[in-house]
Amino acid sequence: MYRTHTCGALRLQDSGIQTTLAGWVQTIRKFGAITFVDLRDRYGITQLLLGEALTKQLEENPLGREFVLQVTGTVQERSSKNPALATGDIEVNATSYTVLNKSATPPFTIQDDTDGGDDIRMKYRYLDLRRNAVKKNLELRYAVNRAARNYLHGQGFMDIETPFLIKSTPEGARDFVVPSRMNEGQFYALPQSPQTFKQLLMVSGYDRYYQIVKCFRDEDLRADRQPEFTQIDCEMSFVEQEDILEMFEGLIKYIFEEVKGIAYTEKVERMSWEDAMWQYGNDKPDIRFGMKIANLKFPGYAFPSKQPDLAEGLPQGFKVFDDAETVVAISVPGCSEYSRKQTDELTDWVKRPQIGMKGLAFIKYAADGTVKSSFDKFYNEAQLKSILNAAAASPGDLVLILAGTEERTRKAMSELRLEMGKRLGLRKDNEFKLLWVLDFPLFEYSEEDNRWVARHHPFTSPKPSDIDIMISTSPEIKDAASYLAHPYASIKANAYDMVLNGNEIGGGSIRIFQRSLQEKMFTALGMSHDEALHKFGFLLGAFEYGAPPHGGIAFGFDRLCAILGGSESIRDFIAFPKNNSGRDVMLDAPSSIDVKQLEELSLILKDQ
Amino acid sequence: MYRTHTCGALRLQDSGIQTTLAGWVQTIRKFGAITFVDLRDRYGITQLLLGEALTKQLEENPLGREFVLQVTGTVQERSSKNPALATGDIEVNATSYTVLNKSATPPFTIQDDTDGGDDIRMKYRYLDLRRNAVKKNLELRYAVNRAARNYLHGQGFMDIETPFLIKSTPEGARDFVVPSRMNEGQFYALPQSPQTFKQLLMVSGYDRYYQIVKCFRDEDLRADRQPEFTQIDCEMSFVEQEDILEMFEGLIKYIFEEVKGIAYTEKVERMSWEDAMWQYGNDKPDIRFGMKIANLKFPGYAFPSKQPDLAEGLPQGFKVFDDAETVVAISVPGCSEYSRKQTDELTDWVKRPQIGMKGLAFIKYAADGTVKSSFDKFYNEAQLKSILNAAAASPGDLVLILAGTEERTRKAMSELRLEMGKRLGLRKDNEFKLLWVLDFPLFEYSEEDNRWVARHHPFTSPKPSDIDIMISTSPEIKDAASYLAHPYASIKANAYDMVLNGNEIGGGSIRIFQRSLQEKMFTALGMSHDEALHKFGFLLGAFEYGAPPHGGIAFGFDRLCAILGGSESIRDFIAFPKNNSGRDVMLDAPSSIDVKQLEELSLILKDQ
Repeated sequence: MYRTHTCGALRLQDSGIQTTLAGWVQTIRKFGAITFVDLRDRYGITQLLLGEALTKQLEENPLGREFVLQVTGTVQERSSKNPALATGDIEVNATSYTVLNKSATPPFTIQDDTDGGDDIRMKYRYLDLRRNAVKKNLELRYAVNRAARNYLHGQGFMDIETPFLIKSTPEGARDFVVPSRMNEGQFYALPQSPQTFKQLLMVSGYDRYYQIVKCFRDEDLRADRQPEFTQIDCEMSFVEQEDILEMFEGLIKYIFEEVKGIAYTEKVERMSWEDAMWQYGNDKPDIRFGMKIANLKFPGYAFPSKQPDLAEGLPQGFKVFDDAETVVAISVPGCSEYSRKQTDELTDWVKRPQIGMKGLAFIKYAADGTVKSSFDKFYNEAQLKSILNAAAASPGDLVLILAGTEERTRKAMSELRLEMGKRLGLRKDNEFKLLWVLDFPLFEYSEEDNRWVARHHPFTSPKPSDIDIMISTSPEIKDAASYLAHPYASIKANAYDMVLNGNEIGGGSIRIFQRSLQEKMFTALGMSHDEALHKFGFLLGAFEYGAPPHGGIAFGFDRLCAILGGSESIRDFIAFPKNNSGRDVMLDAPSSIDVKQLEELSLILKDQ
Repeated sequence: MYRTHTCGALRLQDSGIQTTLAGWVQTIRKFGAITFVDLRDRYGITQLLLGEALTKQLEENPLGREFVLQVTGTVQERSSKNPALATGDIEVNATSYTVLNKSATPPFTIQDDTDGGDDIRMKYRYLDLRRNAVKKNLELRYAVNRAARNYLHGQGFMDIETPFLIKSTPEGARDFVVPSRMNEGQFYALPQSPQTFKQLLMVSGYDRYYQIVKCFRDEDLRADRQPEFTQIDCEMSFVEQEDILEMFEGLIKYIFEEVKGIAYTEKVERMSWEDAMWQYGNDKPDIRFGMKIANLKFPGYAFPSKQPDLAEGLPQGFKVFDDAETVVAISVPGCSEYSRKQTDELTDWVKRPQIGMKGLAFIKYAADGTVKSSFDKFYNEAQLKSILNAAAASPGDLVLILAGTEERTRKAMSELRLEMGKRLGLRKDNEFKLLWVLDFPLFEYSEEDNRWVARHHPFTSPKPSDIDIMISTSPEIKDAASYLAHPYASIKANAYDMVLNGNEIGGGSIRIFQRSLQEKMFTALGMSHDEALHKFGFLLGAFEYGAPPHGGIAFGFDRLCAILGGSESIRDFIAFPKNNSGRDVMLDAPSSIDVKQLEELSLILKDQ
């Protein structure tokens, strides 16, 4: 061992002992004839004092930042202590040192606030990983990993590894494929998730399975998506939805406790998908703050079970509202005194292409009770007050109103709500609010193919009460206009998402475990009998031999870590991430391969 | 939850309570008007008693093996107890039951000694996994996984995930490659191990890393190789070989204790590679038993530092020995009374093509001290006794002698020794003997390419005392005949293998951490400067910025589990293994993929 202690270990009570440390040179400060060196390792920083003799030695062979040093000396009390450092009371009075390795000058500073841009940091990721900020993220990631394993182990779950070289059954995202040399012309696929394997394990009787496992999706990468990502993947047998919800809110609460020291004792809130869309315009609402949507007007086909928040209907007279399919509002607390400049800026904000609204209406409900709106010409005060009432506005609030087509308007209002929450500081990094979203629709309509697609995946069970409808009805859709009238449109899934601070961190479902229902599902998704057998024959076969009722969940491990670390970016929580083109710029991968490799795989590259 | 207890939970003291169980029908036994059903789940088997009413109900809708049943009833003491079962004192007197799912008749019996052959069991792996024998293997695997993590965590190691989509740098085995759709004509590779990444993590300062991780090698599969396999992968900084040996024999001892309840308190034996080859003809000797090789004769180039076991040299006169490069013997205890038939059979055994010897000589050293050999014509008794003496034979032993070329003869003797150990019952499944093999040669000679290849891998450091030789000598080899005279032939690696019962379970090395030495290594392996930069530029770059001394080890997790489970086959310890053609016969993978998928990847299949 090159060291007797780490650079984070020594304290005042160690004064007088001999020690050998090894680490990296963080800083070098010369004071006349003596030199102070801060030596850094994974555990901390220790100050070294190099006296006259060693300082002379240094003059001949100067040290530089990031040199690797082994130093022996005596621990002594510092004259000027540094309370910001755990080792700040002591220093090591060096008697000798050895340079274990030199370092070129790093292309950016190894500090929390580095001067390196994103590209250079990714190219030199091995240096970026030295920064305390990044190290803390990876330590948090490991702590979450460890806590998850300990909780699941304690609950009787078994880690069982599932294969990575599987069969390509694209449904939803694209598979990454792997040509097989030994089986010419054939390909493996990398798993998008271990979904079918964990279901097979339930059929095999391993009634509590988990894995923290890499998954792969060849998608066009939007910001903050990675082609390979990690899931906490779980499955249980002989359970109903309620059992899963309890087990896995337990998991997340345990992680909060172990990793963040937060006792999340309150019951996790639950909300139906319909209520989430109705109140927040979003199936993963951030419930750290209110500002629920007031539904002033909406079309008949959306939310058949809901009543508008204006019992008497939205007053006529303002053409923008009169012509709109949907009119929704939120009450932003304490913003009634917004200036013209501020409301103009908000209007520009909703008109950006990412939001896509034509304009923004607002009512200022002053603290003294007076009311002023951007459409005063068309509405009288009583009418304005009816809207304030519907939006549950209080004096001092600014009510923001969007109008347009149902889907776009609701989505825009969801974005606007989140933006206002952010501007008002209501989305705090250190506040955590969990939410279960339940009762999703089982199917979504694909206009492109005029057929149903699975909202979650093809293995999700309908609610027990909806099974008969699904079995007895043909999935055929006459035309796009009438899809909402089809009985399938109202079938609810036995599915659940866990939402943390407005991010979906996990999702799962109770699965289909009857062959006939699974076959009907494949039919509903437009798969022929032969295609279903070719792709999923093994699963249908397994369902013949005593499949138990089962269900599960998968958590997006990268995102969970990012949110717990108070960050929006999952890349900061992955040791070696890829960029938005799916490239590892450090490795320079992907790259061309040898002609010989291609030949062995019987592959030819198409002319480019 | 479909159950209140598992099928392994109920005991005599639970008599009288109401319970609901769920599981699979193992057996159905009708006795007149009543029926006994054994219900099985992951945790055990519980006997159900179905009275007259329920038995009648059964007659209308008969149960079958592997039906999934939910049963409610009362726990009661059994009249005829089954001490072989943890629940054998009780039964559940059923008041109602529900068939949760039916089962077709399984294609083989779900029992320890199944009637299913290998192929059918692999095709229906989800049923095979129900067998207690297979379940025990996966449970052991999980226990080893858990123990390894706990030990490494306790020692300050961090689990850090490394990427799966990396760069192809074939060196040794073939890479599996993954075409990139977003980077046309380019490929990722799947990692053969996280070797370079864990070294980068050391450069980044994460001084204790581990991962239990899938690795991939596109090799022609010999028996018991899998294209994807799992490693316990570890790396440490600021360590020397001795630190690694201590840390990781600690790991294996901890696993013994936790998983097998074996206190392996003795010091792990150590042996140089040269001694292993000299005494056992093998670099992974099984030291559960003796029968060390007596080196009666060997050529000058092999083992320059060793003396033959016959000080006076092997007597002349027997042409087979006179003409042979190498003559080696082992003393097989208690077999001096072998019949002619038995020695003939052994002779046939060594003449099989897998062993490849021309014959077998032997000396029977009877319990009464008389000596008889297969070459009595040529040697007198004193000469025979000198051989017995060299082979450390005792009265009652059978001395087996092989003669031929050095490499083949030594290898054959190693095989013969293992075979005799097996026949004599000296290789006990429940006895575990660890061994470190040390001081491997750094290089091997490749006759095909007339160049050096790395015995371990290109990142292994030479022994510190050999670094100067390596740096100062040209790697060029004049011709095959003279390669042993080249200084590189005698350079020893700072490498170590851990051997358990004659199987290599782990191997590693202290790594090169100086750019200049790493570049020299690439040159020695015949890599041009440009090729080295193209393939490993990121690592060479990292070594510029303060790389610490470091080293590590990787354990073959599948094999470790198999040996701990007393099996030779790793497939039995993998949930979903592939067959010897790399196929998953359950999934039917690999398989052809859609034309559309190929097009998106800009790939064309060569005509087959």
